[in-house]
Amino acid sequence: MSQGFNHFDENGNAVMVDVSGKNITYRTAVATGEIHVGEAIMEAVKEGSVKKGDVLGVARVAGIMGVKRTSELIPMCHPLPIQKCSVDYELDEINGIIRAFCTVKTEGKTGVEMEALTGVQVTLLTIYDMCKAIDKHMVMSNIHLVEKTGGKSGDFHF
Amino acid sequence: MSQGFNHFDENGNAVMVDVSGKNITYRTAVATGEIHVGEAIMEAVKEGSVKKGDVLGVARVAGIMGVKRTSELIPMCHPLPIQKCSVDYELDEINGIIRAFCTVKTEGKTGVEMEALTGVQVTLLTIYDMCKAIDKHMVMSNIHLVEKTGGKSGDFHF
Amino acid sequence: MSQGFNHFDENGNAVMVDVSGKNITYRTAVATGEIHVGEAIMEAVKEGSVKKGDVLGVARVAGIMGVKRTSELIPMCHPLPIQKCSVDYELDEINGIIRAFCTVKTEGKTGVEMEALTGVQVTLLTIYDMCKAIDKHMVMSNIHLVEKTGGKSGDFHF
Amino acid sequence: MSQGFNHFDENGNAVMVDVSGKNITYRTAVATGEIHVGEAIMEAVKEGSVKKGDVLGVARVAGIMGVKRTSELIPMCHPLPIQKCSVDYELDEINGIIRAFCTVKTEGKTGVEMEALTGVQVTLLTIYDMCKAIDKHMVMSNIHLVEKTGGKSGDFHF
Amino acid sequence: MSQGFNHFDENGNAVMVDVSGKNITYRTAVATGEIHVGEAIMEAVKEGSVKKGDVLGVARVAGIMGVKRTSELIPMCHPLPIQKCSVDYELDEINGIIRAFCTVKTEGKTGVEMEALTGVQVTLLTIYDMCKAIDKHMVMSNIHLVEKTGGKSGDFHF
Amino acid sequence: MSQGFNHFDENGNAVMVDVSGKNITYRTAVATGEIHVGEAIMEAVKEGSVKKGDVLGVARVAGIMGVKRTSELIPMCHPLPIQKCSVDYELDEINGIIRAFCTVKTEGKTGVEMEALTGVQVTLLTIYDMCKAIDKHMVMSNIHLVEKTGGKSGDFHF
Repeated sequence: MSQGFNHFDENGNAVMVDVSGKNITYRTAVATGEIHVGEAIMEAVKEGSVKKGDVLGVARVAGIMGVKRTSELIPMCHPLPIQKCSVDYELDEINGIIRAFCTVKTEGKTGVEMEALTGVQVTLLTIYDMCKAIDKHMVMSNIHLVEKTGGKSGDFHF
Repeated sequence: MSQGFNHFDENGNAVMVDVSGKNITYRTAVATGEIHVGEAIMEAVKEGSVKKGDVLGVARVAGIMGVKRTSELIPMCHPLPIQKCSVDYELDEINGIIRAFCTVKTEGKTGVEMEALTGVQVTLLTIYDMCKAIDKHMVMSNIHLVEKTGGKSGDFHF
Repeated sequence: MSQGFNHFDENGNAVMVDVSGKNITYRTAVATGEIHVGEAIMEAVKEGSVKKGDVLGVARVAGIMGVKRTSELIPMCHPLPIQKCSVDYELDEINGIIRAFCTVKTEGKTGVEMEALTGVQVTLLTIYDMCKAIDKHMVMSNIHLVEKTGGKSGDFHF
Repeated sequence: MSQGFNHFDENGNAVMVDVSGKNITYRTAVATGEIHVGEAIMEAVKEGSVKKGDVLGVARVAGIMGVKRTSELIPMCHPLPIQKCSVDYELDEINGIIRAFCTVKTEGKTGVEMEALTGVQVTLLTIYDMCKAIDKHMVMSNIHLVEKTGGKSGDFHF
Repeated sequence: MSQGFNHFDENGNAVMVDVSGKNITYRTAVATGEIHVGEAIMEAVKEGSVKKGDVLGVARVAGIMGVKRTSELIPMCHPLPIQKCSVDYELDEINGIIRAFCTVKTEGKTGVEMEALTGVQVTLLTIYDMCKAIDKHMVMSNIHLVEKTGGKSGDFHF
Repeated sequence: MSQGFNHFDENGNAVMVDVSGKNITYRTAVATGEIHVGEAIMEAVKEGSVKKGDVLGVARVAGIMGVKRTSELIPMCHPLPIQKCSVDYELDEINGIIRAFCTVKTEGKTGVEMEALTGVQVTLLTIYDMCKAIDKHMVMSNIHLVEKTGGKSGDFHF
């Protein structure tokens, strides 16, 4: 390992790090992120959620499916048997912000932080795609890990 | 179409919108986004890029490959024949920020905005994954379309 | 070609048939299929669609995404640039039957019959998955092409 | 959980249900389904299986590969380590019907019913694709779970 | 472009090269490769091909499906609309060698050399997998492009 | 099982063989393969590795990602939880040969030989793709398993 990185060997070559010697433990991760959509889109999203044009419902399905593709997208990520996945939202209507939360659980030798973050990113991208005909100035921001539990490095809270 | 959305029909049902009547034109899109990594990671990333542990090189490959998976990840996204794709970086060393830019070109009936944004997200996620052993407080922010050209709706500059 | 099959060569070996000499034309296909769910599930599905637990909405997203994976699933199927895709439903509440319709459009050298049929199958499978905790006796039936237009072989109506 | 569904939370939002607390047990599932192909195709399929143009052999490979993609296609489906998969056929020559059976085994926290059903669907779709140059009136029917063993809900026989 | 490479920019960064300015032409590619299987496996493969256990048939299906995944596997490879794909074999029984040929056609802005080579590799890997219970000393060799036609760089014959 | 093959049943039908009764053991596999690139490409690759245009770095990322797709590409291959993966190189500059080694670890009921071989093949294909603008006469050769450990059949050394 070089420079504190875990995905490079001593020569600096990328490597999917060896986790075979680690213990299997229950692991959870929660990630979050927001998309600034502005007033017009916020109004349309709210209408849709209760009546028709369910942007947030479609984005939730995409986010959950995206979680299962994490190890295909992130080169050094280990494939993991996802045991639970959910996507939730908070709407800050005053500021025109939709905040997504993705929660993932597994039982494995490495954690699901990347899975939770990928779930958030795909959820936000799908909201963008569903709303971009109205306005393309949306900005995705403040995407980070909220907390993780399990594993040798212990719990983490942002 | 309901509420100005383009991916819902008149009953509010999600639909991959009909683009068969649109013209084939040259289309480009550039998207950007940043990851706030802090001082320790910035130092390690810079070292790696010139010597060993090439975080940005691995993330570039992942981003370009991610662009090609966009229509698998985003439910209502049309598959498009990507004709060019690149990922570039700007390093703001003072503030510990890595900024990624993804440029995509196609010739088609619909644009490559989602492809460029997906490329940015996968690039940032990979940087996160490669550096998370050092510090998990990284935050991804300010992810948006920079510009697009081609298509009926004309050019867009953020 | 042997026995009238188009995906075998003269020695009986499977082959992705050569379509390079065919003309590019507009092509559409509609397929349908039904799932017999019984009374209890029909009741729950109807409730969900208007209030919460939107089985049909989730299945529609899955069906549309499945259409885009057709050439990955069916060995001799040509990849095609899907230009439109929608999934619609008819509910026969008396007999406890949900009928799905999948409509696909492209402009290409070969048709989208397999895409429309795959969309129906993935939609029905997803309904099954979402409802199987209530009752596993569901049966999928009567899945077939409804019509296609475009291409050398002309229009087809079931 | 709402209405007896297991893939929605108490607010009716789709969720990949939490199976982390369930026991790992041996699980099997068998699903079946049929395709009505008519006399001309039945004749050709039979010829091909023994001599050339092995429709059923190609469809079997597709079905087994499809089983491994189940959790990519069905949104709320958990990824599972498939430990056995086979596809078998029964030919009802009198009525022009090919019946496929897909058997799947795993050791996990949730069952392989969806995998077996997906295997049947992809098998039938491939038969359709291989034979559609002869006649497009084929109908897929009577697709259902035959039996499953293992897991908390116990054994099931259709 | 640096050093004559086409997939790096002037700074040496990997890039999916811009083909948008190139002409669409008919393009074909043929690749070949061999697997040295020895006498026992050769005997079994020959038996299987005519009677049961059709190794070469399964490997052909895998190879054709692999061709369609080329741009997912090779990072800088452009996605292309494959219009024809076949896999053929020559058996050198004296020396215990199976030789595979993969032929691919498209109409596009870039060639299908990588698709043909990927088809050969997946075909050979599948033969290996199907026969490895008999003997793991198989060696894959002499894998190369045989010829290509179309495109600005003209025809190529090995 | 027929003829000593393990992926066919007693009727000669392809089957993903039942491994549910096998023990979970630590398993490793190393595979190797070479690409003959000639003098000009060897020179360019060496320059790139230390300065710009890092062919071997890009190919390593592709190879590791390819390992994770093995069970999607090889029809009868069981999906396995990869726990470690690395790709290393030896450069024979005199003879213009790049040799790749892929090492894979898992803990499972079946081995990772196919994963290691697939990693080698995708690595070599990517080197080919990155260098083919210079010269298309490259040949991939001598691809085989080097060793495996774990499992009922015991250790293997080529």
